[in-house]
Amino acid sequence: MFAEYLMRLRQKRPLIHNITNYVTANDCANILLASGASPIMADDPAEASQITSLSQGLTINLGTLHQGTIPAMLAAGKKANELGLPVILDPVGAGASSLRTHTALRLMQELHISIVRGNLSEFKTLALGSSDSRGVDVCTEDRITDENLDVMIPRVKAFAASCGAVIAVTGAIDLVADGQNAFCIRNGHPMMQSVTGTGCQLSCLVTAFAAANPDDLLQACAAAVCTMGVCGELAYAKLKPDEGNATYRNRIIDAVYRLTPEQLEEHANYEMR
Amino acid sequence: MFAEYLMRLRQKRPLIHNITNYVTANDCANILLASGASPIMADDPAEASQITSLSQGLTINLGTLHQGTIPAMLAAGKKANELGLPVILDPVGAGASSLRTHTALRLMQELHISIVRGNLSEFKTLALGSSDSRGVDVCTEDRITDENLDVMIPRVKAFAASCGAVIAVTGAIDLVADGQNAFCIRNGHPMMQSVTGTGCQLSCLVTAFAAANPDDLLQACAAAVCTMGVCGELAYAKLKPDEGNATYRNRIIDAVYRLTPEQLEEHANYEMR
Amino acid sequence: MFAEYLMRLRQKRPLIHNITNYVTANDCANILLASGASPIMADDPAEASQITSLSQGLTINLGTLHQGTIPAMLAAGKKANELGLPVILDPVGAGASSLRTHTALRLMQELHISIVRGNLSEFKTLALGSSDSRGVDVCTEDRITDENLDVMIPRVKAFAASCGAVIAVTGAIDLVADGQNAFCIRNGHPMMQSVTGTGCQLSCLVTAFAAANPDDLLQACAAAVCTMGVCGELAYAKLKPDEGNATYRNRIIDAVYRLTPEQLEEHANYEMR
Repeated sequence: MFAEYLMRLRQKRPLIHNITNYVTANDCANILLASGASPIMADDPAEASQITSLSQGLTINLGTLHQGTIPAMLAAGKKANELGLPVILDPVGAGASSLRTHTALRLMQELHISIVRGNLSEFKTLALGSSDSRGVDVCTEDRITDENLDVMIPRVKAFAASCGAVIAVTGAIDLVADGQNAFCIRNGHPMMQSVTGTGCQLSCLVTAFAAANPDDLLQACAAAVCTMGVCGELAYAKLKPDEGNATYRNRIIDAVYRLTPEQLEEHANYEMR
Repeated sequence: MFAEYLMRLRQKRPLIHNITNYVTANDCANILLASGASPIMADDPAEASQITSLSQGLTINLGTLHQGTIPAMLAAGKKANELGLPVILDPVGAGASSLRTHTALRLMQELHISIVRGNLSEFKTLALGSSDSRGVDVCTEDRITDENLDVMIPRVKAFAASCGAVIAVTGAIDLVADGQNAFCIRNGHPMMQSVTGTGCQLSCLVTAFAAANPDDLLQACAAAVCTMGVCGELAYAKLKPDEGNATYRNRIIDAVYRLTPEQLEEHANYEMR
Repeated sequence: MFAEYLMRLRQKRPLIHNITNYVTANDCANILLASGASPIMADDPAEASQITSLSQGLTINLGTLHQGTIPAMLAAGKKANELGLPVILDPVGAGASSLRTHTALRLMQELHISIVRGNLSEFKTLALGSSDSRGVDVCTEDRITDENLDVMIPRVKAFAASCGAVIAVTGAIDLVADGQNAFCIRNGHPMMQSVTGTGCQLSCLVTAFAAANPDDLLQACAAAVCTMGVCGELAYAKLKPDEGNATYRNRIIDAVYRLTPEQLEEHANYEMR
């Protein structure tokens, strides 16, 4: 099923506006190009909304957050909302500082966020910070495992419903959910954690898939999560014994560049819940 | 002929001051080192002109433009003008936002820019924004092709004359022109478009070649454009079927590192018009 | 001896807060991950000290210094001092601009810096800028060689004593000294100078080793310097004739990822002086 989502991304080649951190911006740009999308990075308040107007999707990433960039995030997000473009939030480090936590919550309050992509710890922070009591339940567990999956799925769905967004909680097992349905995805490789910015890159891929498949954000997001995981597996399979995380970084992006819709279909490992 | 230009760059090892974007800064630094030059990135207004004073050339790149950096661009540019150093402008995204368009035009007005390196769309914006009517002619075509080459060459020359700068319009066919002469260059590979920042990297190479060959900016710029294109070809020839844009990025920089003057001479594919 | 230092780093997996430049931030993050540490980059004054509180060590790097970041450096440094965490200063470009020179001196004055890692030219600037006359002696030589080693070692020790910090002067021969003892290290490969940010990456590794071995900063710093040098050698040995500085960059980080304590012990080439 995800094959079509990738094909549409390759055909439409959407321009993705990314307001993102300087640590992983280069890899984000290259993985977007690898996927078939085009990247543009622009974070000055004086141009943010104008750049969004030219784009088909917006990624907001809170890594290396600067206070002066927040007005750009809001302006770009409002423009994207006005134009009906998907807005993807990656709340990097929510919970690590008040600045990041408050900014993530503010963006979720003032903008219509289409998809939030983060790890469980970031979602705990967002859930605790929101007034929705069911959301808070997300935070009683440390990570998503086979053991707590039956408990976590309804909680993530409830949080998605309370946010009115698709939620992608990524980890060893990924959950991608809206209020009704959840994809439980088992792709990827633990070594991806040794590459800086695989989460940031995934968030940009999510925006690209969403921009090319705007009518079905849940599936588009799940397709992106599977793409990143499958490419992490394919890249790992090619890693030689003396190669490490720097080469792995390159091979993951290479794998996205070479990924065929058939490969994605074949290797995507998920169930609907 | 370009062999000497590369040899002089390798001998002189100029220090290049780059005020550039955070997406591609690392690749820009590594390609400068690969070419034999040394990079320094510094964009705070409090130090920009002092850093320029230590350098042999200045690159100003408008990617991820911040309003607060514009005074640094002006101060560094004025210092470079005062010292007679080449100033290369890469008007990334001119036309995509008013901030970038106005900044590009302002820099061209307040500074003596030696060389402008961009794509046709960016030059269209600059030409429309200037009051010179011949410049505007640049914008009637979408890209430079064999079919419109006879028409485009005099237009690019006229625009170069009106700016008092060397103009490098890069695309499938590259034109490097001053008011009198144009190099028409057919090097490179389409896959270079799938690597973020090949344009930014080329602009830095242009500065390096110009800094090492300051008495002949037209030829120096053409030598840099051929170098990037030839290295794109050499790198592509080594790419394995499962390698993608991330590995290609590395191989292009590697090719610059290993490029011999003889290789450049042999593979450079250009004609004077 | 250094084997244990690496083992402790791999076991403790310290979180390292880096306030650093945008040119090499990605490589810094990946080399920290390769070493077993975790990176976090955060440079806004509104969150810097809070991020430091979560961390086990702090790197302050002056590359692409922005005036607005200086309060973040001071706040993070004060928090690290309060918590007894190691603070590593990389005075990139001290001497190249007044902004960088004054900032480096100010940080050394207002903070307790545990380790300063730089090249001889940067240390000359710091020594000249300080009122300590013995420190100034550092600046009479251009680089550390076999010929001037007997003269340089006591000077570097004296400067370390005057700063109350461990000093790591890196170059063809590296000196790592406190007031009493010096490690004279002969690892590394000249081609490392053709990779942007090997110095920045080393500074982050120093922080990681210091964070995991806080009771013995001199040895921890020497272990980090040997690690970088050994990995530069191991990576160079694997470089193919057509590979250049971009691939070398990746192979150095890969080598850190794969480095075993035994390899470090075997290849570390140092003497105590």
